[in-house]
Formats: sequence, C-alpha cells, structure tokens
Amino acid sequence: MGTEVTVLGLGAMGSALAGAFVGAGHRTAVWNRTPGPAEALADRGAVRTASAAEAVAASPLVVVCVSDHDAVEEVLGLPGVDLTGRTLVNLTSGSPPAARKTAAWAEGRRVKYLDGAVMATPSGIGDPAFMQLYAGSRADFEDSRRVLAALGDPVYLGADPALPSVYDTALLGLLWSALTGWLHGVALLGADGPGGGVPAAVYTEVAGRWLDTVGRFMSAHAPQVDAGRYAGGEFPLELHRRTVEILVHAGELRGISSGMPELIRDLIGRAVAAGHGGDSFARLVEFMRPGPAGAAAP
Amino acid sequence: MGTEVTVLGLGAMGSALAGAFVGAGHRTAVWNRTPGPAEALADRGAVRTASAAEAVAASPLVVVCVSDHDAVEEVLGLPGVDLTGRTLVNLTSGSPPAARKTAAWAEGRRVKYLDGAVMATPSGIGDPAFMQLYAGSRADFEDSRRVLAALGDPVYLGADPALPSVYDTALLGLLWSALTGWLHGVALLGADGPGGGVPAAVYTEVAGRWLDTVGRFMSAHAPQVDAGRYAGGEFPLELHRRTVEILVHAGELRGISSGMPELIRDLIGRAVAAGHGGDSFARLVEFMRPGPAGAAAP
Repeated sequence: MGTEVTVLGLGAMGSALAGAFVGAGHRTAVWNRTPGPAEALADRGAVRTASAAEAVAASPLVVVCVSDHDAVEEVLGLPGVDLTGRTLVNLTSGSPPAARKTAAWAEGRRVKYLDGAVMATPSGIGDPAFMQLYAGSRADFEDSRRVLAALGDPVYLGADPALPSVYDTALLGLLWSALTGWLHGVALLGADGPGGGVPAAVYTEVAGRWLDTVGRFMSAHAPQVDAGRYAGGEFPLELHRRTVEILVHAGELRGISSGMPELIRDLIGRAVAAGHGGDSFARLVEFMRPGPAGAAAP
Repeated sequence: MGTEVTVLGLGAMGSALAGAFVGAGHRTAVWNRTPGPAEALADRGAVRTASAAEAVAASPLVVVCVSDHDAVEEVLGLPGVDLTGRTLVNLTSGSPPAARKTAAWAEGRRVKYLDGAVMATPSGIGDPAFMQLYAGSRADFEDSRRVLAALGDPVYLGADPALPSVYDTALLGLLWSALTGWLHGVALLGADGPGGGVPAAVYTEVAGRWLDTVGRFMSAHAPQVDAGRYAGGEFPLELHRRTVEILVHAGELRGISSGMPELIRDLIGRAVAAGHGGDSFARLVEFMRPGPAGAAAP
C-alpha cells in the first residue's frame, strides 16, 4: 500500500496524531476498532484499512495509541497482525512495568520498539512547542525522527522503555506544583491593592517571564544534586527560611490557603534544623529520598 | 558633581547595583555608612562621596538599597539629605505597608518615588535575563527606565507602591513550588531504571523545556480566573485526579516523600468532590480564597 506511517487507535489522541501526520504530508494509514473516526480522517487524506493486520502491513512505522496496556495487547494480538521488521511506537499511556512488558514482547518478535509519552493534549499535537518523549534504541529513534517530528518536538530519553512513563509522571508533578504555586500567587495578588487587586492575566504575564528564572535555578541546582554537594552561595536555605515566612504571613493576612507555603516552610525548616542553613534549596532532595534524611555529607 | 545616578547602601546587593551602573557607562555616585565598599567601587570608576547629603545632591536619580525599611528612614533622615525634585528608587526589601509609608513620606516632600523589587541575587544584577519590578508613577518610571535597564529587565507594575513587594512574595512562592515539584521528580527519576537512575542534570534538561508548557497552562488559565469560569476542555480536574494518583503511587513505590503530590491530590479531590470534575485546574483558586470554597458559580 506504500504508506509511511500507520496509526492504530483513533480516539481523541490517536485521531490528533493521525491528523498531524496527514497535515505534515506523510502518507498515513489508519485503523480503529469502530469505523467512524477513520472515515473522518479519510476525508482529510488518510488511508482507511479494513483490519489491524492490513494497517500494520501498510507502513514501516506503526504508532499505537489506545486506552491502556491491555488494549495494546489486544490490538497487537488481532488475527494476521505481523510487526516483524517494523518499528512499533507505543504512545499509549501506561506504567513502567507495562512499557517494559510490551518492549519484551516486541524484542521476542524482532519488532523494533519505541515507547513514548505525549506531553500535550490532543489539540497541541502537531505544534513543535510541545514534546513527545521516546525511549528505546537510539538508532530506531533516529530512523523515525523525521516522521515523528510531525507530532511536535521529539525528545529521546534513553534505552529503557520505562523512561517516558516515569518522565511523564515527574513532569506532571512539576506542572501541578508550579500551577499550585502560581494560583496561590494569583489569589494573593487578586486580594491586594486599593484597586481591588491585580487581575490574574496581568500577574501571569510577569509570572510567565519569571519561569525563565525558575529554569535557571533548576539548571544551577541539578549538578549539585548529582554531586551531592549543595553550596548555598547567595541564596542559602537560611535566607529561604526567613523569606518563606513572609509568604506564609501574606496568605494568613488575606485568608488565602493552599497548604503550599506551609509545606515548603516545613521542608526548609527541617533542612535548616538539621544544620544545612548554609546549603542551597537543592539540599531538600535529601529530605525527600528514603533513608535517614539529611544525615548524609556536610 | 554631575553624576547620572547615585546608589545609597553598598552591601552585596547595593554594590552589585552600583557596579552594573558603572559597567553600563553611567556616571555613578556611591555612598555607604562605612567606607570600604565605596573604595572598591571607586577603583572601578564610581564617584565616592563624603556624605549621604553629597551623594543625593550629585544625581537626579537616587537608588537606595539597605537592610530594611528602618535603615531607609535612617539614611533619608541624615543631615542635609534633600531629595526635593529628585527620583528616589527604593530597592530595599520590605513589606507592602513599609513601601506605602515611604511613598507617603516622598509625596509629602515632592520627591518622585518608585518602589522596586530585585528578582535576582547580586551576581545576576546587570543580566537582562533577570527582572527588576517597579511601581509608582509611570512617567517617573519611563524617565528612569534607560538608566535602570543597566540592572536587568525593568518591569513596570502599576501605581501602587506596594505592588513590587507583593509580586516578590508571590513569585518566590511560584519559585519554591516549582523547585519542590522539580526536586520530587529528580528524586523519582534518580531512583528509577536499571542503570541506577537518571542524573538530575539529564532530567533537568527536559524539565527546563517543559517549563514552556507550564507557562502555556498559566497563560491559558489566567483569563479563566479573571472570568470566574473554568471550562475543563481536554484536561479536566477529573483527569488530573486520576493521573495525580500515579504520581502519589510512584513516590510510595520508591519511598520518596515531599508532601507535594498528596497536597495536590487533596486540593484536586476537594474540587472534584464539590462537583467541579469537569472544570480546569484553575478552579482550584476558588478553594484557596477565603469564604465558602467552591460554593460559587457552577
């Protein structure tokens, strides 16, 4: 049939993936358990197939995006489906063990396997501002990169197929933490001032620019974590401790409560109490890990 | 004397400010209660002055950066200090009431007054990647902007002199929240994988790029807060609730604990329990504000 890429599973995300491939000019075969979504994509230029087997046979690159790991197993086990020699890219959300299990299944059948995580909602697919994370053989990734780039910004993480799943979880944690801190600030600013407070959109313009500084802190602190040495420099935990009290107090004054300032104050307080007041904020990672917190190096 | 700008107070931050003015080619007068720091700056081209009065007389623009509000009052009350007709820029850290008090003092003396907050450590001064926040008369800000740009990226917030102080507190809250969520992810990734985990520096490269997506969420959610309407679209709270459980579980599996995932789960859980499962994450602001949480509009 001579298509470049096949998409198995045409839910909201699968349809967005297939639409992005078509939009980028790649010949795209599609298949779904129920026919409706494939018809909509065929109208946009995708090639409908009669079965999963036919869809898999059509392209060297096969993307599967279904509801969960069990659905992946089901689709790949359908009659006539033969992925031998093809590259299977699994963009179905799943756990690290599920990713490793599917990778092992693929390895046993001489199927090239990339596990992936889509760090965007369906409407963000096709926008290079959003990442898709991939793991598996780097050579397989490089061979597929040009086509996968139709979906967004393809990022290679390493060989372990579990990596996209763990990155996905960690990055969502960062998103939620940042959004919670941002909303707390929105509430603080909104409550303040003689004019009845600062609109969220006005504050957020500055907060968005501030994320650049946040990123610089992360970049400066990351090597400290890897080295296990946390020189506090110009902004040691002792200074964080004093300024976080201002944040706690600002919330109390205005009746605003998210739990966030108190959580941060307590984390910082534990590290300072353990004698790390001269260290950087990155020292707190030692208080998140299992084991005797902060009992490590000076 | 004919200098363009005067810096009063030459601690670590004041010295960095004066150094940045000198470095940008502005004729800069300096004064400090003790003479040592002024000598160091004079070696770099700053103009030493014999008294605060002389320093203030030297330039149309006077920047004060001392330890706290009381120290500001002390310096401005020194014999012979006359700021009439000059622009005073107060970059001393302080509370909203302190800022309003100094602004009232200035207004009573026909001194143009800008309150400011320096969103950088001393070594970041002079780098346009870092913001300084200002409030007061926009005309006064615009008149001083060219010189103030030597310090970094000058951002005007509005007329209320308390704004920089509240923004400072809110932005630090965002920094701490984001760093805490980032460190939690660092701990998760560091604990995982057959190769003994992902180095913080490797994860942080991806996390840094992810901040762009975080910023897009903030920008998309801010108008929802202002409108008080929180359409959940493709990523409603019900979906956040299901995925945050994965984050909580991932920490439990690895013995990693920061309190952050649980806090977020509880916030989201309260909003979903109150019937807002179809709303966006921005709905949570209603649960941070005083009053009957989430009892507002549907």
